[in-house]
Amino acid sequence: MSEETKLIKNKTGLPPGSLVHVGNRKTEKIIITVIDYDNSEFTETICKNIEDCFHLKDKKTTTWINIDGLQDTKMIAKLGEHFDLHPLLLEDVLNTHHRPKAEEFDDYTFLTLKMLGIGKDKRSITSEQISFILGKNWLISFQERPGDVFDSVRDRLRTSMGNLRKTGADYLLYRLVDTIVDHYFVVTDHFDDITEKLEEDALKNPETATLQKIQKRKKELVNIRKAIFPVREAISILEKDTKLFKVGTKRYLRDVYEHIIQLNDTIETQRDLLGNIMDLYLSGVSNKMNEVMKVLTIIATIFIPLTFIAGVYGMNFELMPELKWKYGYLGVWALMIAIFVGMIFYFKNKKWL
Amino acid sequence: MSEETKLIKNKTGLPPGSLVHVGNRKTEKIIITVIDYDNSEFTETICKNIEDCFHLKDKKTTTWINIDGLQDTKMIAKLGEHFDLHPLLLEDVLNTHHRPKAEEFDDYTFLTLKMLGIGKDKRSITSEQISFILGKNWLISFQERPGDVFDSVRDRLRTSMGNLRKTGADYLLYRLVDTIVDHYFVVTDHFDDITEKLEEDALKNPETATLQKIQKRKKELVNIRKAIFPVREAISILEKDTKLFKVGTKRYLRDVYEHIIQLNDTIETQRDLLGNIMDLYLSGVSNKMNEVMKVLTIIATIFIPLTFIAGVYGMNFELMPELKWKYGYLGVWALMIAIFVGMIFYFKNKKWL
Amino acid sequence: MSEETKLIKNKTGLPPGSLVHVGNRKTEKIIITVIDYDNSEFTETICKNIEDCFHLKDKKTTTWINIDGLQDTKMIAKLGEHFDLHPLLLEDVLNTHHRPKAEEFDDYTFLTLKMLGIGKDKRSITSEQISFILGKNWLISFQERPGDVFDSVRDRLRTSMGNLRKTGADYLLYRLVDTIVDHYFVVTDHFDDITEKLEEDALKNPETATLQKIQKRKKELVNIRKAIFPVREAISILEKDTKLFKVGTKRYLRDVYEHIIQLNDTIETQRDLLGNIMDLYLSGVSNKMNEVMKVLTIIATIFIPLTFIAGVYGMNFELMPELKWKYGYLGVWALMIAIFVGMIFYFKNKKWL
Amino acid sequence: MSEETKLIKNKTGLPPGSLVHVGNRKTEKIIITVIDYDNSEFTETICKNIEDCFHLKDKKTTTWINIDGLQDTKMIAKLGEHFDLHPLLLEDVLNTHHRPKAEEFDDYTFLTLKMLGIGKDKRSITSEQISFILGKNWLISFQERPGDVFDSVRDRLRTSMGNLRKTGADYLLYRLVDTIVDHYFVVTDHFDDITEKLEEDALKNPETATLQKIQKRKKELVNIRKAIFPVREAISILEKDTKLFKVGTKRYLRDVYEHIIQLNDTIETQRDLLGNIMDLYLSGVSNKMNEVMKVLTIIATIFIPLTFIAGVYGMNFELMPELKWKYGYLGVWALMIAIFVGMIFYFKNKKWL
Amino acid sequence: MSEETKLIKNKTGLPPGSLVHVGNRKTEKIIITVIDYDNSEFTETICKNIEDCFHLKDKKTTTWINIDGLQDTKMIAKLGEHFDLHPLLLEDVLNTHHRPKAEEFDDYTFLTLKMLGIGKDKRSITSEQISFILGKNWLISFQERPGDVFDSVRDRLRTSMGNLRKTGADYLLYRLVDTIVDHYFVVTDHFDDITEKLEEDALKNPETATLQKIQKRKKELVNIRKAIFPVREAISILEKDTKLFKVGTKRYLRDVYEHIIQLNDTIETQRDLLGNIMDLYLSGVSNKMNEVMKVLTIIATIFIPLTFIAGVYGMNFELMPELKWKYGYLGVWALMIAIFVGMIFYFKNKKWL
Repeated sequence: MSEETKLIKNKTGLPPGSLVHVGNRKTEKIIITVIDYDNSEFTETICKNIEDCFHLKDKKTTTWINIDGLQDTKMIAKLGEHFDLHPLLLEDVLNTHHRPKAEEFDDYTFLTLKMLGIGKDKRSITSEQISFILGKNWLISFQERPGDVFDSVRDRLRTSMGNLRKTGADYLLYRLVDTIVDHYFVVTDHFDDITEKLEEDALKNPETATLQKIQKRKKELVNIRKAIFPVREAISILEKDTKLFKVGTKRYLRDVYEHIIQLNDTIETQRDLLGNIMDLYLSGVSNKMNEVMKVLTIIATIFIPLTFIAGVYGMNFELMPELKWKYGYLGVWALMIAIFVGMIFYFKNKKWL
Repeated sequence: MSEETKLIKNKTGLPPGSLVHVGNRKTEKIIITVIDYDNSEFTETICKNIEDCFHLKDKKTTTWINIDGLQDTKMIAKLGEHFDLHPLLLEDVLNTHHRPKAEEFDDYTFLTLKMLGIGKDKRSITSEQISFILGKNWLISFQERPGDVFDSVRDRLRTSMGNLRKTGADYLLYRLVDTIVDHYFVVTDHFDDITEKLEEDALKNPETATLQKIQKRKKELVNIRKAIFPVREAISILEKDTKLFKVGTKRYLRDVYEHIIQLNDTIETQRDLLGNIMDLYLSGVSNKMNEVMKVLTIIATIFIPLTFIAGVYGMNFELMPELKWKYGYLGVWALMIAIFVGMIFYFKNKKWL
Repeated sequence: MSEETKLIKNKTGLPPGSLVHVGNRKTEKIIITVIDYDNSEFTETICKNIEDCFHLKDKKTTTWINIDGLQDTKMIAKLGEHFDLHPLLLEDVLNTHHRPKAEEFDDYTFLTLKMLGIGKDKRSITSEQISFILGKNWLISFQERPGDVFDSVRDRLRTSMGNLRKTGADYLLYRLVDTIVDHYFVVTDHFDDITEKLEEDALKNPETATLQKIQKRKKELVNIRKAIFPVREAISILEKDTKLFKVGTKRYLRDVYEHIIQLNDTIETQRDLLGNIMDLYLSGVSNKMNEVMKVLTIIATIFIPLTFIAGVYGMNFELMPELKWKYGYLGVWALMIAIFVGMIFYFKNKKWL
Repeated sequence: MSEETKLIKNKTGLPPGSLVHVGNRKTEKIIITVIDYDNSEFTETICKNIEDCFHLKDKKTTTWINIDGLQDTKMIAKLGEHFDLHPLLLEDVLNTHHRPKAEEFDDYTFLTLKMLGIGKDKRSITSEQISFILGKNWLISFQERPGDVFDSVRDRLRTSMGNLRKTGADYLLYRLVDTIVDHYFVVTDHFDDITEKLEEDALKNPETATLQKIQKRKKELVNIRKAIFPVREAISILEKDTKLFKVGTKRYLRDVYEHIIQLNDTIETQRDLLGNIMDLYLSGVSNKMNEVMKVLTIIATIFIPLTFIAGVYGMNFELMPELKWKYGYLGVWALMIAIFVGMIFYFKNKKWL
Repeated sequence: MSEETKLIKNKTGLPPGSLVHVGNRKTEKIIITVIDYDNSEFTETICKNIEDCFHLKDKKTTTWINIDGLQDTKMIAKLGEHFDLHPLLLEDVLNTHHRPKAEEFDDYTFLTLKMLGIGKDKRSITSEQISFILGKNWLISFQERPGDVFDSVRDRLRTSMGNLRKTGADYLLYRLVDTIVDHYFVVTDHFDDITEKLEEDALKNPETATLQKIQKRKKELVNIRKAIFPVREAISILEKDTKLFKVGTKRYLRDVYEHIIQLNDTIETQRDLLGNIMDLYLSGVSNKMNEVMKVLTIIATIFIPLTFIAGVYGMNFELMPELKWKYGYLGVWALMIAIFVGMIFYFKNKKWL
């Protein structure tokens, strides 16, 4: 959360469209992968310079340019110039703290999303910004670092499986978005598993560490929500786009839209659940406290009267007839044991023992 | 909740329309029941192969094909091909974790709902997905397992009671949906009974088990809400459908719509009620704690001063005139008893006893 | 709440329009009262058979048929047939757990409301369903039991006071609804009085019984809200009805609408108030606990040090010079009294006493 | 709140338009003040009978009739007849518990508001209903008692300052409403001052009286909100009124509208603030409790071990070598002082002292 | 918050358009800076009298008049007269407690915002009102005191960097608003840093001071929200303005709009976070209390039984055989040590130690 706004500081006062990479540099080298295909042809190349792929823009085949790494602002400026992209759009691509959104421009449509993943410690949630610019027959995607979840799509393109090669760039974009959204389910599912374990902890080990875990979960859920919730509106905007999306593809976008609604439901449920876990935690703390108090009460309630009796016969009055009775001492022990046993029964009866 | 998203993992990366059964296989054998009727005729057959019922599609009679069990994806693909169904629709039929929804296609309308039931332990709520595809004069229904609540509808079809045989497939769908929704009332009513019992428990036995029961109820209510709430929108969509639903049937759909609103009201009330029960539970815990503290305070407050007095006369000063008095010992007892009785009155006065 | 859904069970699986009385039978005998009037004439009869009033339907005078008791479903079916009423409408009349609503049909308008009252114990709130069917020049009203709040309207009809006899059935319906809504104010006012008393109790007698009263109030408020809140929408629907309501009457309906808004405001305020009372209750419980703890602390803090001093001089060391001092014993008493007084001052200073 | 609905009871069953004064009679004598002016003329008279001002209705000058006191229902009926006012409107004027609202009629517009003030005790908030009926060139205002905040407007009319005399009745109404709304700021500001003092009290004197003050504030805020919140909608309705309000005046109404929004913001903020003060109060109570517990724990933890040691050397065993040591007694004192000092350090370390 | 409404009091009863400076005078001298430019020319002057810049209004170049300090109401009245500004607009400029808003007039558009900053103590948030009036080719800005964040814009104008000099007054306004909004991120980021530190404090030092800090943060967040939230609507109004804003500039306004949405998200997150911190604080308080109780319980539970044993052998019965045993004393010590060690193990087992 803090991370999200922190780096924007560097930009305050700069004119709009100033290309500054806002975010942590997550990769050393920028990799440009270009896939160009139609129903019959397929080429996949890694370009050294961005200029190498410019000639594909006007080719009739579908071209997918994928750029991993955002730090080379000059290269992105060149790309923007060639594809005639609005400076604000490029600014949004480079600002990795941007809210997911879609925006329609004259000749292209812009979409920026978060790719969610599970961290190496199997506990934290990672987030990477992925932006798409969809043109008539080209798609440019920007990622913060190499390595993504699109390999299944690439394989299908390579092997010409399914109807991916027969359809255009709009359908390719849908497939990539669908893959990202499917991955959201993996993340919320994982989140769900961890939360379930927390539930047990909260009641049985209501320690400060448990509380901190609950708080950490809450924050993560807020971040997940911030990544997923705005996608709903973004998909709506794409659905209304009449130029670049074919009617057939829109039915598929509708499907993605429904998945986002289902994800939002799941997130709300998780939020409720974390609220319940907090209740369990507080209840667990309170139970422990009650147990402490019970122990104190039982011990004190048993021994204070006994000590009193012992105190009575420790008095030094000259005339205390009991002290001289033959069975006085035994009698006092008997009395004390009777009180002890009586108390135990009393507590059993109260279900404190 | 966790169950809901878990199996979707298996699908990540697959192209849309890939027919994969998402959910637990709930039956061993798939059963296909075909009922074909009009005002005068009625036939009911169990088909071995899905192809056996294909010829009914173009017959003028109303045909209801009911399929119990979803694991045979090949058969469902064949069905989809013959009835010209959209691959995304079939995907939704097979994904048993789908949110209830209705969707209008060119020649047919799709509706998927949850059938809620009461588990064998009379405590838990069961959920089964039921999907309907309504065509001009046919209705296909998919269930996860055999056994449903539609027998009363089947009986009326068989015996030609009422006007069910005189009306078309749209009215049949309404009747099936109405039966499902009526059953929701049975479930919320049952839920209500259990909750009422919880209310007493919460105040009188505020134990960890009670808390866990409250939490379990809360989770179940969330699941009931997730099953019922979206039906409202789905029915709205059906009401707007101008091709397949006759005006007369729409008035009936309106009635179902109102029932869903009433169910949602009931669910909200239940949610409030569970919140109140949580308050009662916390209050019960607090009462128990107070009782423990009172016992401690009463015992300590009575005996600590008495022990002090005994301690005083246990001192070994050479000059303690009281020790030699004739009635010293008796006097001390009298004092102690007076303090004891005074304390008891004090506590009675404070209403602690 | 539970009552509301309970009896619906009996209906599950029945076809729509099956006339089953859902609710408790609240009267032994059905009473049919028919009032027929215009500006000059007025007749009031009690019919034995529903058929006796059928001839009035087509008379030009305004006819008000009031039926007390809903168990005779056959009679209601006959009525429905003669007045050409939709089966779903009759079903709604008989289902006394229906949500308040208005529905426009071709030739008539249906309205169902709850009549709220104060129980004989002056504490609980009673609820009775009243349904109206308004035709061109007739009005049919259904009540669950005899006895209502409409006597002032009947008197005005009989004595031809005001302009009630000069206006049509739509204005009569408005007057009956207005009477019901005015009565809602009586109920919320009564509720308010009881709540005010609770407020004092909550802080001063924070006992379990008080908590249970608060919870009971909360539940009742939910029921009041469920009876009143949907009326707002129902009145809206009537206002839009262009066939049966004259423009002049609509201005009056607007007035009822505003009353409902004011009632909803009052209910929200009551809800807040009950929340505050709950806070007071919890605060009262906490105050009592604090008092208990203070008593314990004061007693223990005073006497534990004194007991220690007594203990010291109860030791049996051979060489304890104080024991032999002339004023040793007195000195110890002086010390102990000084500590006692000091402690009292300390507690006074802390405002614990 | 209770007051608001209480007197409506008297009206239940009466026909609409029955003129009954609902509210407390707040003045003995009714005062009718008539101000008649245009750019050149100005007359101000106090009429004995309402009929005395009827001739002004059709004069071209602007006429402002102000009536203080609502108990003379006959007089108001006469006024209604002459100005052709709808009976429901007059009913609303007389019902001093009405929600603020505006309503457009054929020839006039009705507006009813609450005038808020600060009670004589400088703590409570007073509320008085003010209703306005605006005609083409006349304005009638009704107040519950004499004395208002309009004197600055009257002065400006008398001295012909500003452009008040040059504009019509619509602008006069705006100026009166603006004065009322400006006064709301005075009230919320005063409320704010009192709340700020509460904040300190809550943390430092968390007594029952403080809690009751917080609750009283909460109730008052609800009443303020009920007076101010609906004004927003009322002003909206006036803004849409195209007959009586000139375009220029509407810009001014817009300004009032913005003030109401700002007031609503302030009220929301106050609500949050009172919630925070409640948190502070609860925290203060908890702090006091903790302090009590700490005192008990410190005293008990120090003296219980010391008493034990004294008890040991008070045992009567024949063979207790320590008792005969020369420095035995001193040694025990040394041990006890060491324990005492150690404990003090321990508590200092724990920051309990 | 209190500050916000306080000074409005002075205005109650004044006619609309009365120019009164509502707010604290934040500067001694008023400074008028005039920048006049087009693509080729650039002049920057500090005017002594407002009249000196009047001739620029009708020049074709873009003119930016910036006024620091609002106390000279006469000067502002003159300005209003020359630029034909509505009196309510000038009133809003002078009322420094106004809610951010935009309003379209015939020939110009009015926008008022809050400039947020970080106080010198690096903890508090400062707020200054900035108002803009945008005409065809001129922009007037009003600030409460000299010193602002616009220097980067001025530099770009001076050096003719970027396309600022090539575009009109609408783009200049956008740039100034964008600078203010960018600064909001700096403030929320700073706020975020402070909150993060609070989170640690809350759990580890749950003292009253921490609570007060949390409350202070909450209030500040309310103020930040009140400054930023309404900007969203204001920007919307500008976007719809078709006269003064060019289509190209509107795309940039859209960008600002998105930033405001993101800021609102951040503020909501902060609110949640402060709620969580409050939970942590309460949990921390409860933990401390539990620790106190544990110490008491451990000490009391160990020593009360031991004291009892000592008490038993301090009794003065004549026949107590143990007292004469050779190893009696040692045996008692052994027993007491055994109890002590046993208790320690018990507590270890319970994880209280």
